[in-house]
Amino acid sequence: MSKVAFIGLGNMGEPMAANLIKAGHDLVVFDLVAAPQERLKKQGAKIASSALNSIQDVDFVISMLPAGKHVEGLYLGESALFNNISKNTIIIDCSTIDVATTKKLSTEAEKVGLNIVDAPVSGGVAGATAGTLSFMVGATEENFYNVKELLANMGKNIFHAGDAGAGQMAKACNNMLLGIMMAGTSEALQLGIANGLDPKKLSEIMLNSSGRNWTLEVYNPCPDVQENVPSSNDYEGGFALDLMLKDMNLALQASLESKSSTPLGSLSRSLYAQHSNIGNGHKDFSNIFNQFSKN
Amino acid sequence: MSKVAFIGLGNMGEPMAANLIKAGHDLVVFDLVAAPQERLKKQGAKIASSALNSIQDVDFVISMLPAGKHVEGLYLGESALFNNISKNTIIIDCSTIDVATTKKLSTEAEKVGLNIVDAPVSGGVAGATAGTLSFMVGATEENFYNVKELLANMGKNIFHAGDAGAGQMAKACNNMLLGIMMAGTSEALQLGIANGLDPKKLSEIMLNSSGRNWTLEVYNPCPDVQENVPSSNDYEGGFALDLMLKDMNLALQASLESKSSTPLGSLSRSLYAQHSNIGNGHKDFSNIFNQFSKN
Amino acid sequence: MSKVAFIGLGNMGEPMAANLIKAGHDLVVFDLVAAPQERLKKQGAKIASSALNSIQDVDFVISMLPAGKHVEGLYLGESALFNNISKNTIIIDCSTIDVATTKKLSTEAEKVGLNIVDAPVSGGVAGATAGTLSFMVGATEENFYNVKELLANMGKNIFHAGDAGAGQMAKACNNMLLGIMMAGTSEALQLGIANGLDPKKLSEIMLNSSGRNWTLEVYNPCPDVQENVPSSNDYEGGFALDLMLKDMNLALQASLESKSSTPLGSLSRSLYAQHSNIGNGHKDFSNIFNQFSKN
Amino acid sequence: MSKVAFIGLGNMGEPMAANLIKAGHDLVVFDLVAAPQERLKKQGAKIASSALNSIQDVDFVISMLPAGKHVEGLYLGESALFNNISKNTIIIDCSTIDVATTKKLSTEAEKVGLNIVDAPVSGGVAGATAGTLSFMVGATEENFYNVKELLANMGKNIFHAGDAGAGQMAKACNNMLLGIMMAGTSEALQLGIANGLDPKKLSEIMLNSSGRNWTLEVYNPCPDVQENVPSSNDYEGGFALDLMLKDMNLALQASLESKSSTPLGSLSRSLYAQHSNIGNGHKDFSNIFNQFSKN
Repeated sequence: MSKVAFIGLGNMGEPMAANLIKAGHDLVVFDLVAAPQERLKKQGAKIASSALNSIQDVDFVISMLPAGKHVEGLYLGESALFNNISKNTIIIDCSTIDVATTKKLSTEAEKVGLNIVDAPVSGGVAGATAGTLSFMVGATEENFYNVKELLANMGKNIFHAGDAGAGQMAKACNNMLLGIMMAGTSEALQLGIANGLDPKKLSEIMLNSSGRNWTLEVYNPCPDVQENVPSSNDYEGGFALDLMLKDMNLALQASLESKSSTPLGSLSRSLYAQHSNIGNGHKDFSNIFNQFSKN
Repeated sequence: MSKVAFIGLGNMGEPMAANLIKAGHDLVVFDLVAAPQERLKKQGAKIASSALNSIQDVDFVISMLPAGKHVEGLYLGESALFNNISKNTIIIDCSTIDVATTKKLSTEAEKVGLNIVDAPVSGGVAGATAGTLSFMVGATEENFYNVKELLANMGKNIFHAGDAGAGQMAKACNNMLLGIMMAGTSEALQLGIANGLDPKKLSEIMLNSSGRNWTLEVYNPCPDVQENVPSSNDYEGGFALDLMLKDMNLALQASLESKSSTPLGSLSRSLYAQHSNIGNGHKDFSNIFNQFSKN
Repeated sequence: MSKVAFIGLGNMGEPMAANLIKAGHDLVVFDLVAAPQERLKKQGAKIASSALNSIQDVDFVISMLPAGKHVEGLYLGESALFNNISKNTIIIDCSTIDVATTKKLSTEAEKVGLNIVDAPVSGGVAGATAGTLSFMVGATEENFYNVKELLANMGKNIFHAGDAGAGQMAKACNNMLLGIMMAGTSEALQLGIANGLDPKKLSEIMLNSSGRNWTLEVYNPCPDVQENVPSSNDYEGGFALDLMLKDMNLALQASLESKSSTPLGSLSRSLYAQHSNIGNGHKDFSNIFNQFSKN
Repeated sequence: MSKVAFIGLGNMGEPMAANLIKAGHDLVVFDLVAAPQERLKKQGAKIASSALNSIQDVDFVISMLPAGKHVEGLYLGESALFNNISKNTIIIDCSTIDVATTKKLSTEAEKVGLNIVDAPVSGGVAGATAGTLSFMVGATEENFYNVKELLANMGKNIFHAGDAGAGQMAKACNNMLLGIMMAGTSEALQLGIANGLDPKKLSEIMLNSSGRNWTLEVYNPCPDVQENVPSSNDYEGGFALDLMLKDMNLALQASLESKSSTPLGSLSRSLYAQHSNIGNGHKDFSNIFNQFSKN
């Protein structure tokens, strides 16, 4: 069993930490908010008084923070972790952040001989709670080997995407594609509806034809085609549209920086932004379906 | 066994007719070109001297023609089939054409008491030859019941999309979505490649995540990620980009006529048009991958 | 002075006919609606009992109808005008319709030795009333010469776009570009506003820089930047968004048929369709500005 | 006359500095490259041995650098200018950079009581040489008043866009709109050409109709429609497509950060990126016209 510092105990971080405790690991946790610390203490974690105090003698540091600036603030700077962490510790950043910051961190880590791995997740709060997340890991072969078992306590798919930064990039690509497919599937369904088709029949046909994709399989955006999906529950639950927008922004930043042509990703991102700007940011992202509605 | 007139013996029509002969049906065939007629004659078909002469005493008329104007020319007009066909015959138009023409035909058929069914297919020449096509059928319940068994001699999935016209519309929706997904998947893969990812690893990750779709399953657009797909064979074979463009045009005509908003479908259609205009129309449609290449 | 049959007395046709009367021409008018006929009668026109009865011994027939199917119905068919009109009469179709119908009409006209000219207008009801319309004329050199003077009674710019059909096509191109510019200018203004800029200052800067375009000159889409424009009058008056959508549809039909790549035109058309579908079709088309609003 | 330090003597900076010398100002210049320093010395400038040595006792510091990171490196950091500059000096950054860096600089300047103004230009090397640039200035009223006269030695339009950062933002909006219009105008012209129109006639019509915009006025993208424009000179000279792409990237970064919906700007940016990726980055940006060509 390992000794793990877990920093960032939000909606995702708290259940991830809880699964590590359940698996028998020794946890030191830190967050600016007290409540999740207290809940994890009852499950067996120690509470650190600061991020800096959490990292003594640990095998792993895991961070799960909202954006690049928080991650940079945690690790870089005079009194930040990079200047105080042991070279025997492996840092695992599970935050979903911009590739540029991830690469900056790994460059700085290399300079001072530290090991850092980017391991953003997909699967949402439900997956974090159930321990069925997917991890997309950017790491050397050796580091991947060393973190794989630990991550398997929190997820069921542990993908090695490539070297440092590759995990972040792979997630950005996947989620950009998901955003395109959800919008495209919505368009296709609405075009059918506007021309008299039954969305259930059309979904069934496309699911069994070359239009098949993850959204038709498990996340149909049209209400009442599938049970137990956000669209059939007034677009509650699921993955908030504003989070999808955040992920598409990360993909498009990488697109701008690499001079890539991403016409469908760029357009989809604007469609989600527009839909958020009229008040739908907190609904499930499959609500983009309504943007193509005829009434 | 049924008596069937089969009109239009092109790349798709000929193997479809052959499968009906194999299944034991009695075929009368007609095409403006002699060669496929002769080949089918050797397999047991009778050759008609004209479309009009093919339809005497048949249970079914099947047509498989390139575009709406050909189908309209065959059935409508003074000396055309609608004026000469028995009310006991069921007409099955397997052509992929515009929804407006399909609806016009079914309206005219209804006026004169004829039974017509639209049943466009997907699966390509390979599916037509192997008898594994998908049929998307627009028909009354009764007509669907009456044609289903016959179509099953040529395909493995026989979908009832709705009333007359619905088959055509369902195919348009499916193929528009396919066009979006192929372009979107290409974009995502190229964005990854431009940022240092290995397309095989990225494909594997997205295939097992929320980016999963038919193209990643069986038709990866990046060369050498999958075997036996067009992209790994210099984009030969498969489904020609110009045919995808034709199908997207049909979807967008329906979009214009129904005042639907189809931003991703419309944009994708322009991307395919641009790619065809620089000389790629005869390549497999997954060649759109190259439009997003960085060199 | 000429003898003119004027068919189609809607919002545009009536004031156009009135201007011809004012200029001293001899008018016979026809519409399915009585009121405009009566009003024009008071100004000196004769009322015909049918389209067919309006065309005896006239120098020109002018038609101003809503869509291709109406124009086709007027001229083609057994008891329609083409079979009954004198070869000395010049037909001027001022309707804005699809290029395919326009070309069909000119082909049919040529077969029977008739002279037809397409002359769609821009300038709206205000321009029709003031006699300041722009005419985009598709005609032979000779026909253009013969109609130019007559059209000058209704408009101030009489452009010769090319042979038959070219007038319609030129209008489609112009209005597609206008649709793109109005949406693009709206986007740019809203991006500035979202980042703290004053839309008046930004408009002034772009108007005097390389962003200059017709919308910034005389039709600013942001309320209260310019006086006497629809945006400053709650988007009343002006050019209805649904009419812009109709014109963009005509351009995109031509794009589909000519396999052109029109990504921005196609996308803009979907944006207008979406904006119409949520209830803004009757507002001025500059209301698309609100689609990019952040609240 | 003023004492001015001018840092960054590239294609734009050198002729701008030369115009200040011509106007009688006292210049100290610095660049990492020797040649432009020597040329300006012959015209009367003093050469500084470093950026830091250039700023003693000057009234103004003007910087003209390629990107945000260079500007940040010049002004921020321990041994950088902000720590060494007099509070009586006004800093004018004429670089075209991202809004985020510009805002960071003005925030830092405010903290230490320095005056900084953002004043990006448009007009290219020709405008810089002729002294006819447009300046888009972000500054307090007082600072604007204080720099206006100086800038007028280098340009003819000095716009006050708003407070610090507004100059940068206004340029980003203008150039995004320009990028959209150039692509949109190209699309419209190519659609006309594909349908048989003469691009000269179509350009003439749109220029005098509601399609009018800066590109049709002075920068027609179709070869041989206008004289003395890049398109008529094999797309040489003018404004390089890669520079347009850079400017659109800046606009889209601001769009991502402000959660703005910019569908046409985003799409256009991808079209330029694609066109650059196949080898057209060094051509004039009106070469995007060829992307919509049919052969």
